[in-house]
Amino acid sequence: MSDISPKINSERLKRLFDSINKFGLNVETGGYNRIGFSDADLSVRKWFTEQMKGDGLAVHSDAAGNLFGRLGDADKPCVMAGSHLDTVPEGGAFDGALGVAVALECARSIKDAGIEPTVPLVVVATSEEEGRFGGMLGSQTISGQLPAGWVEAATDAEGVKLTEAMTVQGYAPEALEEAAWNKDSIRAFLELHIEQGPVLESENLSVGIVEGISGVLVLGVNLKGEANHSGTTPMHLRADAFTGLATIGAAIPGVIDRLGGEQSRITIGKVDIKPNFPHTIPGEADFTIIIRDTSADIMANLRKAIETVVETVAERNHLSFTIKERSYLPPQELNENIREAFVAEAKKRTLSYTVMPSGAGHDAQTMQAFCPSGLIFVPSRNGISHAPQEWTEWADIENGAQLMLDMIVRLITKKD
Amino acid sequence: MSDISPKINSERLKRLFDSINKFGLNVETGGYNRIGFSDADLSVRKWFTEQMKGDGLAVHSDAAGNLFGRLGDADKPCVMAGSHLDTVPEGGAFDGALGVAVALECARSIKDAGIEPTVPLVVVATSEEEGRFGGMLGSQTISGQLPAGWVEAATDAEGVKLTEAMTVQGYAPEALEEAAWNKDSIRAFLELHIEQGPVLESENLSVGIVEGISGVLVLGVNLKGEANHSGTTPMHLRADAFTGLATIGAAIPGVIDRLGGEQSRITIGKVDIKPNFPHTIPGEADFTIIIRDTSADIMANLRKAIETVVETVAERNHLSFTIKERSYLPPQELNENIREAFVAEAKKRTLSYTVMPSGAGHDAQTMQAFCPSGLIFVPSRNGISHAPQEWTEWADIENGAQLMLDMIVRLITKKD
Repeated sequence: MSDISPKINSERLKRLFDSINKFGLNVETGGYNRIGFSDADLSVRKWFTEQMKGDGLAVHSDAAGNLFGRLGDADKPCVMAGSHLDTVPEGGAFDGALGVAVALECARSIKDAGIEPTVPLVVVATSEEEGRFGGMLGSQTISGQLPAGWVEAATDAEGVKLTEAMTVQGYAPEALEEAAWNKDSIRAFLELHIEQGPVLESENLSVGIVEGISGVLVLGVNLKGEANHSGTTPMHLRADAFTGLATIGAAIPGVIDRLGGEQSRITIGKVDIKPNFPHTIPGEADFTIIIRDTSADIMANLRKAIETVVETVAERNHLSFTIKERSYLPPQELNENIREAFVAEAKKRTLSYTVMPSGAGHDAQTMQAFCPSGLIFVPSRNGISHAPQEWTEWADIENGAQLMLDMIVRLITKKD
Repeated sequence: MSDISPKINSERLKRLFDSINKFGLNVETGGYNRIGFSDADLSVRKWFTEQMKGDGLAVHSDAAGNLFGRLGDADKPCVMAGSHLDTVPEGGAFDGALGVAVALECARSIKDAGIEPTVPLVVVATSEEEGRFGGMLGSQTISGQLPAGWVEAATDAEGVKLTEAMTVQGYAPEALEEAAWNKDSIRAFLELHIEQGPVLESENLSVGIVEGISGVLVLGVNLKGEANHSGTTPMHLRADAFTGLATIGAAIPGVIDRLGGEQSRITIGKVDIKPNFPHTIPGEADFTIIIRDTSADIMANLRKAIETVVETVAERNHLSFTIKERSYLPPQELNENIREAFVAEAKKRTLSYTVMPSGAGHDAQTMQAFCPSGLIFVPSRNGISHAPQEWTEWADIENGAQLMLDMIVRLITKKD
């Protein structure tokens, strides 16, 4: 079937990608800021809606802000393709945006080629994938996987409630649950994303075909000691919350050496100490610990070890502590048939590829629990992501986009 | 001479002290916020000026915001007594404010008693003692000890320039240098302060007579790595600025064990990491390291060791680094004659006292390099300071204030 596949329109894809990235650009830093439910996030969604309408797709949005553009029959189960439009603060241009642009370009190419899909194609731009509130709100909404009570309780790292952030922007959190799609309404979910790691570049490969995705556990830790004068309080009488935090941070490499594997990652990325004044011993520290691995067992072991470290360090430093699970996405193996079909299409195009795990979380991981899902990677220069330096060569993007188009055509022209 | 000393008016002192603390109170936390050159700091200075004028003192202020209220001859060398009115963010009620209130109460008692000073008394409320900009601007200005170029370069921990903070509030930084007092214009400087440590309370003593003050070295450290995705970047390929910071923080106890003494204190109180987002490996960390000791040699050794730690940790974690000396106040022994006179007066009142070092920096330390200076402490409950829980029993304050009054009367009625 891919013998008759249309070709990606590279120019048009580039224009679309660049246009998305006019939203949320910080011209001073080069960073992109389309944080979930921010004004820039809403603006790009509004603009993208108009683009899809202009292409003649049947467009609708849901309570989470997910956007859907359908090509083909309104009632039949679809193939869904896309990624997310939100970014981390000061993120890069490619993370999420590229996958959305590629999905819409595929729909455009299919239309241009006059292909009549027997299976409808739905282009999706999911919302809040970056986990401002700890989960993947968009794909969890589509797939009906919002844990009971989670929406009401979720807050971002600044303490802003999810429900508040949504309501301020005109969304109705209470409508999230009924926005879930019916069980058999999606035949397959397909996503193209940048690797965000160094593997493809270092092995000089065009494409990564993902076999499984690391789980993500976000813990919120609070240490409480006593704010005090840094000159008069002897070292052994201190209850220094920063010293506690530092000791925990310094213990992480040892925990991974002891219990982790090659895919283990533990990160303290967000730290707030109080009162945060040079001459005052910190009385309180709030921070996140994120644990990732492709094995649920390893994740559980790492979690247990980290919790023990926090407990031990708190006791030795005269601190009280709390550890809260902010969110947990289990490791997820992706659909084998889709993976093999991607491999087959890559071979037809003689693309260099590898089958690999993903250390980052993606919508495809949430969707896999709901419908067969597949994910492909294009290379990231120096493996850098979540930063303005994020970069993928255009030739790699063309290859990845073409593979996605071939795969979509394969699935939407099925005669079953 | 102290046989004829007047008595402190305890009620009047309490009213004055409470009135000062109407400025900058955060009613939610109970913390006081009269940060140097903040609006609350300016308001309390304006109010205190009016108080001193109301007492018939000859009042003037200088380019740094220091307030002076003179009792007696306008031209003769004076005895100066007081402390500072500024606070750390969310500080306590007693730190600084108590010493200022006691000095003015002493002037009031002396006036009430009809004592004609042969040596004029100057009540002083110094500015910016808490080191928002790293030094002790007020007493450094009085004593002509502003290092060349320091004023122009000084910034607070948020990056606000001293000159900017002053100019915004109507002060003229370029006039600081000429605000220095003439060399022989101050015969003695006297300060009462809370201990801010646990010694007096734990030994059940009324008063501490300070023999020397720890030096304070403020280092500003910057670590630069690479902000990156926390899921895809293998642990061994990270350049994680927070891991660097944590490793440095965790190494401090070992450095003190190895090279420090009983008076050694090393504190990381102010920390900023970027981008400070849970899912992103921190690419940069800015933080302060404050080293204190009563021995200049020990301070130098601790500094060298900390610099080595920073260098080693940076290299191991693929980080670049800078270490800047933000300010350095050397350890300072206080005047022996004044110390002995305080001891003699304490004995006359049969106050329980000890002669002790001070771990905290004080204006008396700056002034000692300019004129004979003395400092006395009153106890701090649980040794807590720089926090809303700061507390000194009123009976202790009465004892300390009376000792200060006795000492002032002794010095201003001298017949030489």
